[in-house]
Amino acid sequence: MASGRVIGVDLGGTKLLAGTVDSSLHVHHRAHRPAGVSSLAELLDTIVDAVREAREAGGGDVDAVGFGIPSLIDQERGVAVSTVHLPIRDLPFRDLMAERLGLPVFVDNDATAAMLAEWRFGAATDCTDALLLTIGTGIGGGMVAGGALLRGAQGAAAEFGHMTIDFDGPLCPCGSHGCLEAFVSGTALAREARALGLELTAAQVAELAHDGHAGARALVTEMGSRLGTGLANLVNAFNPEVIVVGGGVLALGDLLLEPAREEVARRALAPSRDLVRIVPTRFGAESGMLGAAVMAFEGVAA
Amino acid sequence: MASGRVIGVDLGGTKLLAGTVDSSLHVHHRAHRPAGVSSLAELLDTIVDAVREAREAGGGDVDAVGFGIPSLIDQERGVAVSTVHLPIRDLPFRDLMAERLGLPVFVDNDATAAMLAEWRFGAATDCTDALLLTIGTGIGGGMVAGGALLRGAQGAAAEFGHMTIDFDGPLCPCGSHGCLEAFVSGTALAREARALGLELTAAQVAELAHDGHAGARALVTEMGSRLGTGLANLVNAFNPEVIVVGGGVLALGDLLLEPAREEVARRALAPSRDLVRIVPTRFGAESGMLGAAVMAFEGVAA
Repeated sequence: MASGRVIGVDLGGTKLLAGTVDSSLHVHHRAHRPAGVSSLAELLDTIVDAVREAREAGGGDVDAVGFGIPSLIDQERGVAVSTVHLPIRDLPFRDLMAERLGLPVFVDNDATAAMLAEWRFGAATDCTDALLLTIGTGIGGGMVAGGALLRGAQGAAAEFGHMTIDFDGPLCPCGSHGCLEAFVSGTALAREARALGLELTAAQVAELAHDGHAGARALVTEMGSRLGTGLANLVNAFNPEVIVVGGGVLALGDLLLEPAREEVARRALAPSRDLVRIVPTRFGAESGMLGAAVMAFEGVAA
Repeated sequence: MASGRVIGVDLGGTKLLAGTVDSSLHVHHRAHRPAGVSSLAELLDTIVDAVREAREAGGGDVDAVGFGIPSLIDQERGVAVSTVHLPIRDLPFRDLMAERLGLPVFVDNDATAAMLAEWRFGAATDCTDALLLTIGTGIGGGMVAGGALLRGAQGAAAEFGHMTIDFDGPLCPCGSHGCLEAFVSGTALAREARALGLELTAAQVAELAHDGHAGARALVTEMGSRLGTGLANLVNAFNPEVIVVGGGVLALGDLLLEPAREEVARRALAPSRDLVRIVPTRFGAESGMLGAAVMAFEGVAA
């Protein structure tokens, strides 16, 4: 018999969050773990242990487990195809986890999971066309178009961070030049601060900007404009009702989003630019975990 | 009783093509007209006359008429919302034409129509994820994702020509800077030739390039690279199986497409860049007309 609860797991490069979630998206327990582990065996044990904790603390009975992973996922085989930060590449992750946990397991890209949570219950509810960008160290993306969650032909779509906005721009770790991610990310913000002689983390720049520090404000405004350039491209390509922005840069709030909105108004075409709302995630840092839970609910119901 | 034939009309800014088409996409008659007319009444008469010619020459009996129009189309009302080149803005085009022609009428954007023809019968057959760019004076776009033709929330999606690839780049007529269209179009090619002291049309530059003229070749190669930058953005965003390129620039053939493919290989991410094929339209200058016919077939069948 169905318990009406699932576990959603957001498996990041440095930390893991497992939540026991009911069908109204209420979280009954959260298990946190560091995920920056050395070996595959250790990582799998950490995951199994976090899921066990979430399961027991939530009353024991759950129907399925969903995983959001920062990787290209082969949906047919449940395999993480290209993950950089975790030692699970080409591993039959879904089947392996299903066996160790004794539960149905569903796996998707973490930003796609976040998009799902925001679409079903959050900032993109009732939209047929919506995009999500999670901006932290890098940029992840998810998309809903024509009323469906889309992943592209190989599950590799929505790589919005590697959109060229300046073809002769700075080298990006991906090998291209002038990618959005090279201008808009926690990494970029810290780098730009360093160029001004400020040895600060992105979080510290955010704090300074909120405190009214002119140099930090200028950096954040410029980053917001660059973000807006990328979003204008997406507005013209997708004509979405909403673009949901999440990830670590949300600490900047409207200091980042307002210049982005202004740039979209300058660059994108009517009527798309007038329709689109550019808003923060409803679920913040828990979008990925909740989306993994929604994926598990929809997976067992299918 | 259904005749099994429809008329597809590609209504461009300067000319009109109406074709009588059967369900295997064989064209039984083509009626050509100039469309660069002065008044609305004259344009409507021209359309009605071309459709009459196509209808009579094709044997008289047709089931419906489809129109591809270079405009944002309000699908609910069958109205051309934003056309620049034709005096039919905000006109109830579909209903008006249905009344004058005495036939069911279907209307869509011309690039969306071309995408439909290429998807059902052409270069994107059997694809679930495909894009089309028609590059002439400007750039039109169409898209299929997740196995469906997509238009965005207001029918305004796939404006790939106004994707910023150089945020401090040249002013585009749309008001933004560094749009793909400002680098890649017949207009851009003629402008760049002029900057080299060559007073030539885009077609003449194409001819020189095919003849091996070094200056013309260099211009076309550079334009191909810029096109590839834009296509790489689309490859990363959509992960399509194929990108179909049509429009006047097809006269350049692989002189344009080969540098574009090379730039995609340099800029786009694996595995998307390895999957995508960048190919010319199958139906060339008739993609729009044939797509309008497919639209009419699918409209009467729905």
